[in-house]
Amino acid sequence: MEKRLGGQTVVLHNNPKIISRASIVGRKESQGPLAEYFDEVMPDNLWGEDSWEKTECRMLKEVCEKAIINANKQVTDINYMFAGDLLNQIMTANFAARQLGIPFFGLFGACSTMTEALSLGSIMVDGGYANNVLCATSSHFCTAERQFRYPLEQGTQRAPTGQWTVTGAGAVIVSNKGDGPSVTHITTGKVIDYGIKDVNNMGAAMAPAAAETIKTHFQDTGRGPQDYDLIVTGDLGKFGRELTIDLLAKEGYDISSRYIDCGCEIYSEDQNVQSGGSGCGCSAVVFTGFILKKMEDGEINRVLIGSTGALLSTTSTQQGESIPGIVHLVAIEKKEG
Amino acid sequence: MEKRLGGQTVVLHNNPKIISRASIVGRKESQGPLAEYFDEVMPDNLWGEDSWEKTECRMLKEVCEKAIINANKQVTDINYMFAGDLLNQIMTANFAARQLGIPFFGLFGACSTMTEALSLGSIMVDGGYANNVLCATSSHFCTAERQFRYPLEQGTQRAPTGQWTVTGAGAVIVSNKGDGPSVTHITTGKVIDYGIKDVNNMGAAMAPAAAETIKTHFQDTGRGPQDYDLIVTGDLGKFGRELTIDLLAKEGYDISSRYIDCGCEIYSEDQNVQSGGSGCGCSAVVFTGFILKKMEDGEINRVLIGSTGALLSTTSTQQGESIPGIVHLVAIEKKEG
Repeated sequence: MEKRLGGQTVVLHNNPKIISRASIVGRKESQGPLAEYFDEVMPDNLWGEDSWEKTECRMLKEVCEKAIINANKQVTDINYMFAGDLLNQIMTANFAARQLGIPFFGLFGACSTMTEALSLGSIMVDGGYANNVLCATSSHFCTAERQFRYPLEQGTQRAPTGQWTVTGAGAVIVSNKGDGPSVTHITTGKVIDYGIKDVNNMGAAMAPAAAETIKTHFQDTGRGPQDYDLIVTGDLGKFGRELTIDLLAKEGYDISSRYIDCGCEIYSEDQNVQSGGSGCGCSAVVFTGFILKKMEDGEINRVLIGSTGALLSTTSTQQGESIPGIVHLVAIEKKEG
Repeated sequence: MEKRLGGQTVVLHNNPKIISRASIVGRKESQGPLAEYFDEVMPDNLWGEDSWEKTECRMLKEVCEKAIINANKQVTDINYMFAGDLLNQIMTANFAARQLGIPFFGLFGACSTMTEALSLGSIMVDGGYANNVLCATSSHFCTAERQFRYPLEQGTQRAPTGQWTVTGAGAVIVSNKGDGPSVTHITTGKVIDYGIKDVNNMGAAMAPAAAETIKTHFQDTGRGPQDYDLIVTGDLGKFGRELTIDLLAKEGYDISSRYIDCGCEIYSEDQNVQSGGSGCGCSAVVFTGFILKKMEDGEINRVLIGSTGALLSTTSTQQGESIPGIVHLVAIEKKEG
């Protein structure tokens, strides 16, 4: 059977299954509307470590271990780990992989990492190159804020279009055996740039990539919004979410009735997060905590999810570059047997 | 046919082929012993751009375009681009991917990126998920030096175990049709840490990962050094190369007569590079320029190559962390037909 649909989409005919999931979040995330869905809440931002970077690494390592345990597997059963994070040289993922000792493909897709990892991991299983893979990512408000923005101690005022980096980590095990929803289609994003330069408006920077990849997925598969119970983006926030709806409406696709953005779901209005949540961990914990639980419970059966990445560094910003975005889409469906 | 050999190795039965290659280097690299093998030499470190970061990006973009042209393909024939680099948030690769417009998987494996990209790209082709993929990486002495070490203007004295970041970019096209050597085995590395903390001795930090992954490859495949005409590591340098030979000798494998390190080959002793070359571009240009040319010319037919990554960031170093390494091995063989 043909695997390439043309365009940017491949079909996975062998039904690689998401057989387990795990999520860990920080306190702020545990005070939001999705609180009940997360497996574990850290008592504070340090969790007994002596730097936020070490805390983020522990969070990622532990969420991976949880996902492995939830799958009734041993670490040695996992053939590959696909992971990345926001920190320079993805040190969180490198150090977590060092502790886990699983053959490791390090990824950088900014906040698109969860579905980038899920894309590659699912293909490895579908193709028979792996029996079980681990796909994971994390972000931490304190490590991201001091790397990309300002020292936290400075108390800088936040822009209304700004977003709040989620403290959280999520992991799944994808397997060729076992129970769980199947990964059926992978639509891999291109880097899309509409010339946005405002680092406090990443939703606008990423929305064109989200709209473009979703449109391409529909064109490649012959599907439309009605074929999914839920369409999900990673961390576009309020403004980016509206932009995505508008951009797709112009292409003739009305996704508004079945579309959520993880960044809009994770915090409530009164949590002072401006436009919503962001960070690799945002779509990771909403996906592994909330969305996969809704699939388990049979409330939704077909999901199209795309983690959304804004590609910038402090150097690129200082050099006056614009901020391109990238979005990797994965279709997940509950199938019989 | 079984694709997993157990351990960390998969076999590619469908002979994905490296159908084209391209390399661009800086002036210093063009003055070394491999000068004649590189496709293009930049006239200076800036190449008419106004920052070294822009130069590195242009170098990566142009080497990708060269590889595509050398394969007699159009950009639109390329299904996926696998690339990464050393800069924070892999901005070189992100911006090159933006200009090329190819569906993009961003990778971070430090200097292991060339064979990380080749591993994933070859699997995608072998599995029928792609017809043509682009695998590429780059580094630039000036961007790496100012990000990881000191301002160049400072003229800091270099340690004897230190290495010189190669200014260069390399790219290959892997395809399911066409002529070229086949990628036959992929042995994916784990993150290995022997506790080295000296940022001026990355060879020692990476050598254990090199030895470990090569040993695993031999165990998984039942092969030994004698099954390869050439065994290649990325950028261990003089000291790391010797360590790797020693570590493997202790495991009963004598690779010394057929083993080269790209970091030891690219510069001559009188070029003032201490222990040798390093950077993603080091193995990328020696592989695409020199090694693949030797295969084309029939001088060597079976190569085992592993780009070697030292996983550190300025933050991890400041926080007193040790430097783990990772090495991804790829076996490449000339086959008939």
